[in-house]
Amino acid sequence: MSASDLSRRPVVVVETAKALRDAVGAARRSGLKIGLTPTMGALHAGHQSLMHAARSECGFVVATIFVNPTQFGPHEDFHRYPRDLARDLAACEAAGVDLVFHPPVAAMYPADHATFVEVAGLSNLWEGKSRPGHFRGVATVVLKLLNLVTPDIAYFGQKDFQQQAIIRRMCRNLDLPVEIRVCPIVRDADGLALSSRNVYLSAEDRAAALALSRCLQVAAGMVGGGETDLALVRRAMRKELAASPRVEPDYATLVDPETLEEVDDCPLRLAAIVAARVGTTRLIDNLLIDRCPPCAQS
Amino acid sequence: MSASDLSRRPVVVVETAKALRDAVGAARRSGLKIGLTPTMGALHAGHQSLMHAARSECGFVVATIFVNPTQFGPHEDFHRYPRDLARDLAACEAAGVDLVFHPPVAAMYPADHATFVEVAGLSNLWEGKSRPGHFRGVATVVLKLLNLVTPDIAYFGQKDFQQQAIIRRMCRNLDLPVEIRVCPIVRDADGLALSSRNVYLSAEDRAAALALSRCLQVAAGMVGGGETDLALVRRAMRKELAASPRVEPDYATLVDPETLEEVDDCPLRLAAIVAARVGTTRLIDNLLIDRCPPCAQS
Repeated sequence: MSASDLSRRPVVVVETAKALRDAVGAARRSGLKIGLTPTMGALHAGHQSLMHAARSECGFVVATIFVNPTQFGPHEDFHRYPRDLARDLAACEAAGVDLVFHPPVAAMYPADHATFVEVAGLSNLWEGKSRPGHFRGVATVVLKLLNLVTPDIAYFGQKDFQQQAIIRRMCRNLDLPVEIRVCPIVRDADGLALSSRNVYLSAEDRAAALALSRCLQVAAGMVGGGETDLALVRRAMRKELAASPRVEPDYATLVDPETLEEVDDCPLRLAAIVAARVGTTRLIDNLLIDRCPPCAQS
Repeated sequence: MSASDLSRRPVVVVETAKALRDAVGAARRSGLKIGLTPTMGALHAGHQSLMHAARSECGFVVATIFVNPTQFGPHEDFHRYPRDLARDLAACEAAGVDLVFHPPVAAMYPADHATFVEVAGLSNLWEGKSRPGHFRGVATVVLKLLNLVTPDIAYFGQKDFQQQAIIRRMCRNLDLPVEIRVCPIVRDADGLALSSRNVYLSAEDRAAALALSRCLQVAAGMVGGGETDLALVRRAMRKELAASPRVEPDYATLVDPETLEEVDDCPLRLAAIVAARVGTTRLIDNLLIDRCPPCAQS
């Protein structure tokens, strides 16, 4: 089946767990491998790259669209988070998704909901410091979605670096029968990582926001060029951010890609991670860096 | 296949997740329904009643034997908890179990284990007050075992009343694709609820321990006889316990069977729950009481 055939296949939308399980059950009984791309909607080419990856490996691709209240703090943007279901469904259909699960909040969190999953340690670093409870909400809703869809493979973006590390750890620690794939960041031509929150940026903010990807490139250039004094690299990253007056840095550092702990001994693979507020919008970005120059990759 | 045929079927023991998944996957591909009875070993007729229930509904019955360290407090009996694998395997085989999963602690909790699930509220009442962290450990290991075995139906005893309420809530809250069955308490002829910890009781302790089931019978008698003043019933329960000098009561009360909160308005169904220390051993017991006398059941 060609890509154009796939793009013509109409996407089916279900809102209840029963309809979801029935559809997935039928696909599984037909011998199809089930792929899942969980999203909060506000879909962009980054999300669609996950759907394309799922489409290439799985006979039946499920996307979920659910703006999960438990991962937003009380003063965060849950209510103004961009929602446009018609546009999102068109994006899913164009990317070859078979089924969209779009449940109401009250069905995901009924009155007696009291169960949360937490990945200790990993959840309290970096984003967790600025967003207490965020990763508890993320881990819980992802676990629920994995249990509802029971996919063979689930796809997450590297863009949310700490999130994917936490989800991988959770799935391994809880022995979930699912494979997790992490797909590369999709960037605009100028280097800005795609994010649903980029719509909040003014034209000036957007130009200033390029400091984030530039600071990662600075780190990659130095480490790739043989620099092993990571304190020097961190200083250069922070300097790059500081050059943009509209950018208010939170962190810019180098960490172990699994433990997310800061590294100083320059291991073979490390992750450069950055977070900053640009205007009123908090942005994050990251880059995987391999120390051996010939095999460096992003 | 008759019961005697079943009892002759040799039980298979596996220690790794891979061997477990392979065996369960083969059974499922043969069209068999999968039943799970999670245990900590030290098996008695109560556990075997769960296995019999699984045998009657499922084509493939898995028992797990794993003394779970994360549900024991630092001063509890993890190290002296009774362990006798040969005896337990014979008990499984006699009850018609097909497969026993008996993993080492280091495989269930590798060095990077950091993920825990918690059912808020329910976990902090009653046993949770005396055993902080206990139900977090229980919920986490049960979730792991459910993910490892992926049963259609899992069987738990009513004996651990708060545990089964928490597990049912967790499975519902996390959308786990499993049915939970709760099986009645098995008692000795004199009324003592079977428990792996009964082996700790001296002869005098054992006689004194009958105060627990007696106090539940007192409650059932009063409520069944039409008493609606639950404060009176609670007082009578405590009085029954106090009559035994070797018994050091923790709680003896009447609760809603779902929320485990104390009730005063005498709903149609309630649970009498009791916990006490007898000698050095903490014991628990419970009884479901229906207020309408003709349909009362235990």
